[in-house]
Parts: sequence; C-alpha cells; structure tokens
Amino acid sequence: MGIVLGPNRYGKAETRVVRVRRDGDVHHIRDLNVGISLSGDMDEAHLTGDNAAVLPTDSQKNTVFAFAREHGIGEIEEFALLLARHFTGSQPTIRHARVEVEEYAWSRVPSSSGHSFVRSGTEVRTALVHSEGTGGAESVVSGLKDLVVLNSTGSEFHGFIQDEYTTLQPTRDRILATAVTARWRHRVPGGGGYGASFAAARRCLLEAFAETHSLSLQQTLYQMGRRVLEEREELCEVRLAMPNKHHFLVDLSPFGLDNDNEVFFAADRPYGLIEGTVLDDAAPAAPDAWN
Amino acid sequence: MGIVLGPNRYGKAETRVVRVRRDGDVHHIRDLNVGISLSGDMDEAHLTGDNAAVLPTDSQKNTVFAFAREHGIGEIEEFALLLARHFTGSQPTIRHARVEVEEYAWSRVPSSSGHSFVRSGTEVRTALVHSEGTGGAESVVSGLKDLVVLNSTGSEFHGFIQDEYTTLQPTRDRILATAVTARWRHRVPGGGGYGASFAAARRCLLEAFAETHSLSLQQTLYQMGRRVLEEREELCEVRLAMPNKHHFLVDLSPFGLDNDNEVFFAADRPYGLIEGTVLDDAAPAAPDAWN
Amino acid sequence: MGIVLGPNRYGKAETRVVRVRRDGDVHHIRDLNVGISLSGDMDEAHLTGDNAAVLPTDSQKNTVFAFAREHGIGEIEEFALLLARHFTGSQPTIRHARVEVEEYAWSRVPSSSGHSFVRSGTEVRTALVHSEGTGGAESVVSGLKDLVVLNSTGSEFHGFIQDEYTTLQPTRDRILATAVTARWRHRVPGGGGYGASFAAARRCLLEAFAETHSLSLQQTLYQMGRRVLEEREELCEVRLAMPNKHHFLVDLSPFGLDNDNEVFFAADRPYGLIEGTVLDDAAPAAPDAWN
Amino acid sequence: MGIVLGPNRYGKAETRVVRVRRDGDVHHIRDLNVGISLSGDMDEAHLTGDNAAVLPTDSQKNTVFAFAREHGIGEIEEFALLLARHFTGSQPTIRHARVEVEEYAWSRVPSSSGHSFVRSGTEVRTALVHSEGTGGAESVVSGLKDLVVLNSTGSEFHGFIQDEYTTLQPTRDRILATAVTARWRHRVPGGGGYGASFAAARRCLLEAFAETHSLSLQQTLYQMGRRVLEEREELCEVRLAMPNKHHFLVDLSPFGLDNDNEVFFAADRPYGLIEGTVLDDAAPAAPDAWN
Repeated sequence: MGIVLGPNRYGKAETRVVRVRRDGDVHHIRDLNVGISLSGDMDEAHLTGDNAAVLPTDSQKNTVFAFAREHGIGEIEEFALLLARHFTGSQPTIRHARVEVEEYAWSRVPSSSGHSFVRSGTEVRTALVHSEGTGGAESVVSGLKDLVVLNSTGSEFHGFIQDEYTTLQPTRDRILATAVTARWRHRVPGGGGYGASFAAARRCLLEAFAETHSLSLQQTLYQMGRRVLEEREELCEVRLAMPNKHHFLVDLSPFGLDNDNEVFFAADRPYGLIEGTVLDDAAPAAPDAWN
Repeated sequence: MGIVLGPNRYGKAETRVVRVRRDGDVHHIRDLNVGISLSGDMDEAHLTGDNAAVLPTDSQKNTVFAFAREHGIGEIEEFALLLARHFTGSQPTIRHARVEVEEYAWSRVPSSSGHSFVRSGTEVRTALVHSEGTGGAESVVSGLKDLVVLNSTGSEFHGFIQDEYTTLQPTRDRILATAVTARWRHRVPGGGGYGASFAAARRCLLEAFAETHSLSLQQTLYQMGRRVLEEREELCEVRLAMPNKHHFLVDLSPFGLDNDNEVFFAADRPYGLIEGTVLDDAAPAAPDAWN
Repeated sequence: MGIVLGPNRYGKAETRVVRVRRDGDVHHIRDLNVGISLSGDMDEAHLTGDNAAVLPTDSQKNTVFAFAREHGIGEIEEFALLLARHFTGSQPTIRHARVEVEEYAWSRVPSSSGHSFVRSGTEVRTALVHSEGTGGAESVVSGLKDLVVLNSTGSEFHGFIQDEYTTLQPTRDRILATAVTARWRHRVPGGGGYGASFAAARRCLLEAFAETHSLSLQQTLYQMGRRVLEEREELCEVRLAMPNKHHFLVDLSPFGLDNDNEVFFAADRPYGLIEGTVLDDAAPAAPDAWN
Repeated sequence: MGIVLGPNRYGKAETRVVRVRRDGDVHHIRDLNVGISLSGDMDEAHLTGDNAAVLPTDSQKNTVFAFAREHGIGEIEEFALLLARHFTGSQPTIRHARVEVEEYAWSRVPSSSGHSFVRSGTEVRTALVHSEGTGGAESVVSGLKDLVVLNSTGSEFHGFIQDEYTTLQPTRDRILATAVTARWRHRVPGGGGYGASFAAARRCLLEAFAETHSLSLQQTLYQMGRRVLEEREELCEVRLAMPNKHHFLVDLSPFGLDNDNEVFFAADRPYGLIEGTVLDDAAPAAPDAWN
C-alpha cells in the first residue's frame, strides 16, 4: 500500500460582482455570483506546501472584477469561458479550469427613472464552463435552478409496486409541484447565441411541464428534457433534478366537510427526488466537469 | 420579591395551506403560510399544567384548513381576521388573537393549460391582524417583505459625523440597494379593499424609492413611508426596515484600470440597518400586537 | 392629518469580530457577532437628508474592531456596555444605544497544540444592552438561543379544550422537544459577574427542563424561568420562546408492528410556539430596548 | 440523432426518524436524516408513465420507520446497508440502491433524569452506502460534515504565483479556519466496527489539522487525509472539501493602533474552496455512487 494524492482542485467560490453599464441616463445592471475551480500540477502544494504552481484564490477573485471592467459582462456562458480560458491560457500549471456562474434577474421599477431596479423571480440562471486551454477540451453547460412550478390537476400516480411497506393509495388527480434544477449541454462549446438559447430552453421546460398529462414525475421530467432537445439543435444533453414537493389533500371529514382537491397541506420533508438525463445518443461524451 | 407569570402567548406557527379554486378548466391557486398566536386566561397552564383553557395548537392548524374550505381564501387580511375573530369569539378563555399570514405569488405558465403555475417574485405579501373579540379592539396591518430594490445612481452620502473611528469617504454617487420590509396599518380595521390597497401601497413604495434623489437611506425610507400615507387615506402608519445592502466600488487601480462606478462587490455582512416609522399624527394608538 | 416621523433607529448589523489573545504558546479566541442600533436627534436625516447628526454605520463597525484591540473582549455584556456607553457618551445626537452580541463557542482540539480550536455546540450565547448615556437609563439582558433539548418521556398533554376542529388525542406520554431562546434581565445593569451568572442560568434552564414532569410546554417554560429567578437573585425577569418541535409517533400497524413510543417522525412545520415571561413582581419596568 | 433516456435515479430524501430505546429509566436516542436513491429498470416510468417498476418513495419512507422498529438503529453505516440491501434484494427492478444518512449528536443533560438530552455539536456524522444486491458491488463510505476548526497561528502562505491580478501579500502567520466535509471509504464493505472507526478517523482529522504547520490549506488537507489512512487500515480513500474561511487582519492604523494578529474580521463570501482526495494506490476502484 502506498498513500497517494488523488483528484484535487481549488479555487474561489462565490465572488459577487455587480456591473453597471450606462446608456446615457438609462442604466443596465448585471448581478453575478462566480465560482472558480482550477486543477493541474498542484502536487507540491499538497505534499510539501510549495505554492509555486498555485495562483492564489484572491487573484482569481481580482480577475473576476478586472474582467468585468475590461471586457464587460456578456452572456454568462461567455464571461465564464473568458475566465476559464484565461486561467488555463496564462498559467502553465493550470490544466483545467471550471467556472460556474449564477445570474440573478432584475427588472426595471415602473417609473421614469432609468436607474431603478427590482429583483424579479426566485429562479436563477446558471452557466458551467470547463476549459483545458488552447487545443484542449471545452464544454459549456447552461441552466437554471429554483424554477418552482405547479400543476393543480393533470397528474396521476398509480400502477406502482405494492410491497409490504406500501400504504400509498393510487390517485387519478393530484397536485404536481417541483423546483426545477436543469442543466443543458451545448453541442459546440463557444458557439454563442446563449441568450436566445436560454430563453427558448426555459420556455420548452415550462411548456412541457404544463402540457404533459403526467402519470409520474419521471414522465414529466423526460418530456421536459426531450422538448428542449427536440426544439434546440444546438443542445445535446439535458440533466434535470426535480424534488416532488408534496401537496397532501387534507382530510376534512372530521369537520363534516368534503375536500374535492381543494385544500392542500404543502409539506417540506421528506420529499421525493427525481433525477434524470435526456440526451442525443450521438452526443459527444460528457466531461467530468459537470460534477 | 414574588415570582409571577408575565405576558405570554401561544399558537401554531407556519401552517402551509394551498387552495385550488376551479373555474371550469381554469384553476386559481392561493399559497399561504399562517401563524396564529393566542393569549388570555392561560395562567393555570403555566402554573399547574391544567389545560382547561387551552385550545390545542393542532386544533388551530385544523381550523386554518377547514376555514380555507368553508370560507375560501379572500384577501389575506380578511382570512386572517376571520381566523382571529373565530378564536376570540368561540373560546371565552382566549382574549387576544394575533394572526400573521404570508402569501407567495404565482403566475400562469404561458401555455394553453389553465392549471399550470410558476412562482413569481422573491417578495412576499404579508398581513398581521389582531382581534380582542366582539366589541374589543382590532387592528389590521398589511405589508410585504423581501422586496429587493436597487438604484444604480442618484444616491449620495456625505456631511456625516467624523469621529476618531471614521474612515468612510463622503460620496456623491453610490449604489443604493435594500430589501424592503414594510408594514402599514389600516385606519379602520375590517374596512376591506385590501387587494387594491396593497397594490397601490406597493406601487408607492417602488415609485418613491425610484424617484427620491437620496442623501441618506433614512431620507429614502421616510419618503417611501410618506408617499404611502399621502396617497392612501385608508392607511395611518407605515413601519419600514431597510438593510443597506452595501455595494462597494472595487479598486481596480492595481491592474491599471479605472472604475467609474461600473464594477461593484456586493457584500453580505456587516450591513447597515435602517428602521423607521412614518405616521399620521392623528392615528389611533398602535396596538402591541405589532411586535 | 399631518404626516410625521415616528420612532426610528439605525446602526450596523452583524459585524463579525474574532480576537486572539496569546498567553505564550497558548492562545485564547473569542468569536462575536455584534449588532448596533442607535437613535436620537435623527429627524433631519429623514426629513432633508442632512447627515450632520449621523455617525456612519461604517464608523460603528470600525469602533467594534478598535475596541476589541484597545479594551480586549471581556464578557459579552461588558463589551456591549462599553460600546453602548461610547456611542451615547461621545455623540450628543445619539440618545440611545442598543447593542446586541452573539458569541459562538469554541473548545480546544485535544492535542498538544495550544492554538487549535473546534466549534462546539449549536447554541449561541447572547447579550442585549441598552444605554441612554451618563445619568440615563441602562439595561443588561443576557441569554442564549438554539439550545435544543428533548425529553423522551415525562411529558403529557390532556384536558384541553375540545372544539369542533379538535382531533388531537390526549396523551399521557410523548416526546417533548424544543429549541430554547431565553433572555434574562439583570436587576442592576453593569453589576458584572456575567460569566458565572450565565453558566448558572443555563444550568437552571437545563435542570428545570429535565426535572419538570410536564403537563404542557407552558408549564415547562414557566418552571424554567422560575428556576432561574429562584436561584439567581441578580436577575429579575426571564423571557422564553420555545417552539414545540413535534415528534409524531409513527403508525406502524399497517406493517404488523407495534410502536410503544419508540419510533418517531421529527416534523418541521407547522409547529407550536410558546412564548412567556416570568418575572419578579418588584422588578423595575422593562425597557423598550428588548424589542 | 436519437433522443434517449440517460442515467436516472429516484427516491425519498430527508426522512427524519428519531428512535428511543429504553434501558429501564435510562433512555437512549438516535436522530437520523435518511436519503434514499434507487435506480434500475425505470425506462417505462419515464417513457410512458407506466409505474410497474416503481416502488413509491412513500413506501421507501415507510420502510425507514418500519426498519427502525424491526431492526433498531445500529451504526448508521449498518442501518444504511440494511436499507440498501432490502431495496435491491426485494425488488427485481431495482438494481442499485444508494442510501445516505446524517446523524445528529445528542448528549445527556447533567441531571438525575435518564431521559433528558441536549443537542451537542454543530457537526454531523454521515454515511453513504451503495448496494447492487446479492452478489453485486457494494460500498460503504463514512464521514462527517460541518466540523469547524481554526488554528490561530502555525499557518503561512507565500511563494505563490504572482500574475498581473495578484495583490495578495505573502504571510508568515495567519489564521487558518475551515468547515471540514470529509468522507472515507471502507476497504471491505460491511466489515463492521463503524463506531470505533469513525471516532478514530475523526480524531486523526483533528490531530492532523492541529499538528500540521501549514504552508497551504492544500498541505493541511493532504496531511489530514494521510493521517486517516496511515492509522486506519480498514480505510482506503479519503475525500475532503475544505472552504478557506478567511479571517482578515483588520487595519487599525487609522486609529493609531497596531494589530499584531489580534483582531480579525471573519468574512463570509467569497471564500477559497479546496477539494482533494487521498487514497491507497491499491484501493479498489471507487463507485460512481459517491456523487
């Protein structure tokens, strides 16, 4: 037996950068949370504490701010790629860069002011980019999280396994609610058009959720992923994680009341958790950097 | 010295009720979090454990669900009043009822489905109602929380005290950002019109935030409260709590870059916290139940 | 009707200060979260944006750090008093200072190292101090929060009101669990001895929780407050907030299993919430600054 | 291009089970959070909504409670294995079961009561188990999370890359603080002795953290993992994730004060994040189920 160093990475997490762009009196803002994770020839830092190969995480943070000023912030996929390529391109010891970005949405306050904004939506747009430097592999994954959706009908669940611990009754009509985390991989990294692609993929997810008469949350998940791939040829893989946010019908019979799918208790824990991938069978292999 | 029981109250917190109302194939949903706090002749429960005066918190929860079925859910102020009056009106030992409601916003998924919804906005609508039963005092407070707003210019801060621990530089242009918690008291409890009143008060808050050229967050706060009272005669008091969500201009000079109010670091802690009340000087005295 | 400014205050929240004290190779650390809230002659800041009476919250933060260096950090009540008196004593426009401190507990890593620590306990020690300056009123409140305790037997609940919405069954044996938030007021502000007083009050709370055969959570709450006052004559009032963290007995009969108070489901929401005060009837009036 | 279903899994997350075991008047409690994730022949549930292969997540929850009664709760690794083997062993459509358990620590209230407990420690013990059923692969991973540790000296950071965005000054003495998440894999799944193994591994982590004079957090991480493997031959791989919880020395010079590593500001975001693996080079391949 020999004890060795295995896979490792390091970086700066959660750099919160806000950029204001001025168009006369009309301002535009972008509000990001950037996470950087680098790996490469870092054995000595672990084995002896020699940091000659280590770019400080503080410098990574500075780079985020400086790049926001030097290059502006375009689509978050582009900003993430710019950062990832910078780290692998400028430091020979850094072989892989993984950059994650969250973007928070703001809309304008209805007012004559061109510089007043209100946070809109609970959902967050995400990007996850991986680069191995010039000539190396790259990947671009777009996505969203905390997209909370609910169908008040059009959902059934029956025909499942009945084992000795099963007490759940089959149902032909239930509430189906979830908080969607979705990530979709672009066929060609760096192809651009990310803004339109995101809007379309998001619309596909919502429409498929709304239009699928659901026999299981798995079926809804699959239809959501499939819809994205059918409509967006620039994408080749969709990964979804969807908690089943249970809404239990309250038994009102002790109070002499019926309850025809009208009053529900929204429960927190435990919850079902459905995770699945839908992909083009000709898609290039997925990079490790997803994890 | 004699040890005695002082003020006390009890109740069920965070009952999460969702109600679906059907209008043919078009559904409507309401999503509430209800907190109940009751007080009255509860000395024996504390002193001897005799619960003869105690309505179980479990029964309070049941009442929320049963009332959602029996009475539907109108404006949250009305639902809260209905509950508060029920508890004081039906149990002689319960002298005061305080009911808080949070409402989460949903909008329709753009689709032909009439039963598909998506959570909209980070902000939460609130109601806080107090009732002492038939003939007793009542109060109705409406509000919102987590309304996150930002002005990217139009905010100054200077002319402040300079003591020996002051290093802050005066500024003529900064980002002003906050997460508004606001509560406003109705002049006449139970007067109705809560939906329109809420929408108007929220609009006043946003407009005053956007339109006030700010010399201090205190000034903005005051203008926001004042605007609500000026425009809404049914309201007599506004209480606001506004954290100063600091956005610090990043010093990019080490990298040979200027930064003309363009790139900011959004900080978490510590933060300024500004709290204030604006009221009609002829307003009836505020009830303890606010706290 | 005239619109006027009502009660207001401002300050710096959540300044996180850590102080290391060296005793040769043996180090000592203190880890605090400090919140400051000041009020006084602040009308102009609200009405016109004139900040001449305003000590910036940034200066308040600096004061926390500077005082940690100049004065060290004694008991948190003393550190809070030092800060509160400084603000009211040094700025004539500041009439009231309210300082809250949370302290996080660390213990030593079992090792020969004198400088290695591990966070211990989920509970947080608290202090809440109020000062109106030289000759003015002062108050000192000590406390704790997130003290999570559980009795696996010795708790009953029966004899309660049975209204039309009551389905709860009386019980002679249940789990009683809560997360205690407790605050106790000192009879004489600035009397010192806070460390020993805290340890004793905490012990009283735990012992009374453990030793009270409970007929209601209210009874347990009262006994806990009473025990503190009986044993600690320097204290004159105890305020407690205790959520009833419900542990529901799981019905295992569908699986042919009994469940004699053995397997429970720990629920999150909704929960009962019991709040109460126990005080010496000769205690001086409580200051508003508690809220 | 053909759109296909890729990897998928489903299960019940966060089942909160508390078990009381009675030894006369002395009670023992165990407090767990169980997450189950199953996969296998689930294509039809996704493609057509046919649930014939699906064991409801509700049944999985019931199984947790029933097993707590039938089998008691031994070490969490054993309880997780029992569940994982049950699902793969009893349902032919379930090929893989992944069970995660968190355990919350309680200690006895110092008192004569044998049934009174207080939550102890912020840290959580974890287990992650994977089973492919009789004759199939199994893996057992033990661990902990939220173990917050701090060295107030004995940490340096210098000799790093200085690029154009580097402003960080080298340091020969800083605070090193982190919240350790650690997971270690057992060489032989189901070998038992988990309680003693956990206690020893935890001690190794703490001792190595305390005793390593650190030139980088990476070095500390490696020494922690190495110590575990050196002392515990039943273990073959350790994975660590350690955020660098920055403590910044406060510049007190504007106030005429020095600051010789005495007063620090504990920052939240951004933070460094160091992740690494230490393993025996003869260890069997790690299962996918870690992720």
